Amino acid sequence: MNLSEMAVRAKQASRSLRQLDNETRNGVLRDFAWGLAEQAEHIINENALDLEEAKANGMSEAMLDRLMLNKSRIDQIAEGILQVEHLEDPLNRVLEERTIESGIHLKKVSVPIGVIGIIFESRPNVTADCAALCFKSGNACVLKGGKESYRSCFAIVSVMKEALKKHGVSEDAVMLAEKPSHEETQKFMEDKNSVDLLIPRGGRKLIQAVVEHAKVPVIETGAGVCHTYVDESADLRIADRIIINAKCSRPSVCNAMETLLINSKIASFYVPRIVKVLKEHNVQIYGDERACEIAEDIYKGNETNWATEYDDLILNLVIVDNVQEAIDHIETYGTHHSECIITEDEENKNAFFAGIDSACLYHNASTRFTDGFEFGLGAEIGISTQKLHARGPMGLRELTSYAYHLEGKGEIR
Amino acid sequence: MNLSEMAVRAKQASRSLRQLDNETRNGVLRDFAWGLAEQAEHIINENALDLEEAKANGMSEAMLDRLMLNKSRIDQIAEGILQVEHLEDPLNRVLEERTIESGIHLKKVSVPIGVIGIIFESRPNVTADCAALCFKSGNACVLKGGKESYRSCFAIVSVMKEALKKHGVSEDAVMLAEKPSHEETQKFMEDKNSVDLLIPRGGRKLIQAVVEHAKVPVIETGAGVCHTYVDESADLRIADRIIINAKCSRPSVCNAMETLLINSKIASFYVPRIVKVLKEHNVQIYGDERACEIAEDIYKGNETNWATEYDDLILNLVIVDNVQEAIDHIETYGTHHSECIITEDEENKNAFFAGIDSACLYHNASTRFTDGFEFGLGAEIGISTQKLHARGPMGLRELTSYAYHLEGKGEIR
Repeated sequence: MNLSEMAVRAKQASRSLRQLDNETRNGVLRDFAWGLAEQAEHIINENALDLEEAKANGMSEAMLDRLMLNKSRIDQIAEGILQVEHLEDPLNRVLEERTIESGIHLKKVSVPIGVIGIIFESRPNVTADCAALCFKSGNACVLKGGKESYRSCFAIVSVMKEALKKHGVSEDAVMLAEKPSHEETQKFMEDKNSVDLLIPRGGRKLIQAVVEHAKVPVIETGAGVCHTYVDESADLRIADRIIINAKCSRPSVCNAMETLLINSKIASFYVPRIVKVLKEHNVQIYGDERACEIAEDIYKGNETNWATEYDDLILNLVIVDNVQEAIDHIETYGTHHSECIITEDEENKNAFFAGIDSACLYHNASTRFTDGFEFGLGAEIGISTQKLHARGPMGLRELTSYAYHLEGKGEIR
Repeated sequence: MNLSEMAVRAKQASRSLRQLDNETRNGVLRDFAWGLAEQAEHIINENALDLEEAKANGMSEAMLDRLMLNKSRIDQIAEGILQVEHLEDPLNRVLEERTIESGIHLKKVSVPIGVIGIIFESRPNVTADCAALCFKSGNACVLKGGKESYRSCFAIVSVMKEALKKHGVSEDAVMLAEKPSHEETQKFMEDKNSVDLLIPRGGRKLIQAVVEHAKVPVIETGAGVCHTYVDESADLRIADRIIINAKCSRPSVCNAMETLLINSKIASFYVPRIVKVLKEHNVQIYGDERACEIAEDIYKGNETNWATEYDDLILNLVIVDNVQEAIDHIETYGTHHSECIITEDEENKNAFFAGIDSACLYHNASTRFTDGFEFGLGAEIGISTQKLHARGPMGLRELTSYAYHLEGKGEIR
């Protein structure tokens, strides 16, 4: 089946999904999770074929590791699905309710979005995560993963389809693209009749390609050039902890810090101190002119550095004269993801929060907390860096829309 | 100034708008409204030049009427601005608040979207409405109207700029495009760095052109192929009232009914009765095969009719055997705007509400109520027919996004 046909069938399935109660949806998810655990051996065998082919094609060790599934990873995936099952039903929530002037009773109710297309790279666990989150929120999904992981993803989706069938739900609710051509993928991303939303999951290149070519609405996720600003009034013990945590605890993720801004009034003593600690953590540093004057053994950085998401143990270090300069830098080079101010000065904190247009603003806490689980959403399908619909960590509620239900007694206007 | 430069300046202005308190924003709106009333003569003179040119270019009487401004219309515009001023501040609302597991205090707060581009046709009042709604919600806006109304719009925007200046706010907060070329407009619609949202206001053609060419997120508004379904158990006195109201009270608007679906079990007597009343109201009717067998003097319709937004005293009439067939018809030919079921049967109502994916679903009330003022939103910038971000009537709150504000004491992950 080609991708366009899949989208049409997913749309058809989405109409019946909307009408399933939470019990049925949870039953499917339980059987999905148990099925994965039961069929782990088969999935691992299919994954081995993917790995073999990828190795033959020269895939890097790091990428092979992302592709690899074993019993413990499959158990983790199943565990994740059961966690989603236990979350509060995001559908049929009454968001607002009132009798309007005409006497009609108005209810604003959460409903599924419809068909969600997920375009991702080669991690097979994304298949299961996204299928579970979309299904729990009443959405059909069309999953398009990397070719390298096709057999693994197919094995996982087959388990989901069995679970759907067992509960009398259309198997078209979860679709896996069969290595579509570029043309097919392009057509899919333009198919506003069948696809309601596209979520690209992966590196910046993948996301930009989807944004560039889609006509279906896209939620951009992930790109994070995150900043931490150390104000003149900062508690420097707090600064030390947060800086090391934000940069070093997991540099490959989008909420890790890429640029450290330091107030010039404390730079002469704090820059040498923090550079020393960062170097002990193997962080490579690119400084601006003033930073390079204070700390000798760092590289000279430029505008390209300031706008780069390193996802690695590399950090920009920029000296600013006040909170406004910090704001200007962040607004110019940031990606509106997560930024932190370390300060004991309420006024500067307020200026920072009011002046910066990012999804998450932190005062005296690490940007690493930007995460659906940490925020208490119970799940995460991505971190939105755009401003429409959903912003920051997206959980189940962010996978819903709403409708107005209006009850009358013959009212006319 | 070309449109791209305007967008960059609007973006710059939007950064300071975010920090204005509600008092200041209201003060600007009051001076905008008063200024319009004071400068009505100048605005009418400029409008006369637009009208003269439009007439010379052969504009239709109906369009000329839409373009025309007089004292009473300007007073209405000013009144509308004062209404917006009085609305609750949509910014800095705390949407959620909790202490998350790490001990960090999380607040989800409403914030402006940033820069909104409004692309509209030749009604000059749109300029004032949109400028007021965007400004009240902390957004900068770039307005691109039809060439025919440029002088009128320029006169109105000048009054707004004076009000901004008087209160020390950047005049770049409201920009009016200076008859840009197609290329300029195209570039503007792709400028994701400076423009956060595009709202096209006008006919389907305009909206489709924007959706087709934009890379900036678009909220689609307006297209309404609305349905009313008369169930076998309907109270037919209610049906009579609602049908005439939904079709005839204002046929040119998007919430007017375009297709009437009637259950076959009541068709033999109800179709002749309602056709007679509709004809007395000068409604032209296109029926499906069965409808044409029952009512002699109606036209034969086809799939093209079912999908047409007439915006006129024209109606489709289709016979269905049950609520599911009504749902299928609406899902196939509708635009997900507003649909009504007339029934006394709770089960059929529930099936209708669960089965249809539209912004507004009515039980025993006219679809004509789909409107921001009727819904109690206090204002309306358009009616969204899409599912992301905002759905149905959009008021001030729908012109905001949100951000997470996180207060810590040195927490690390």
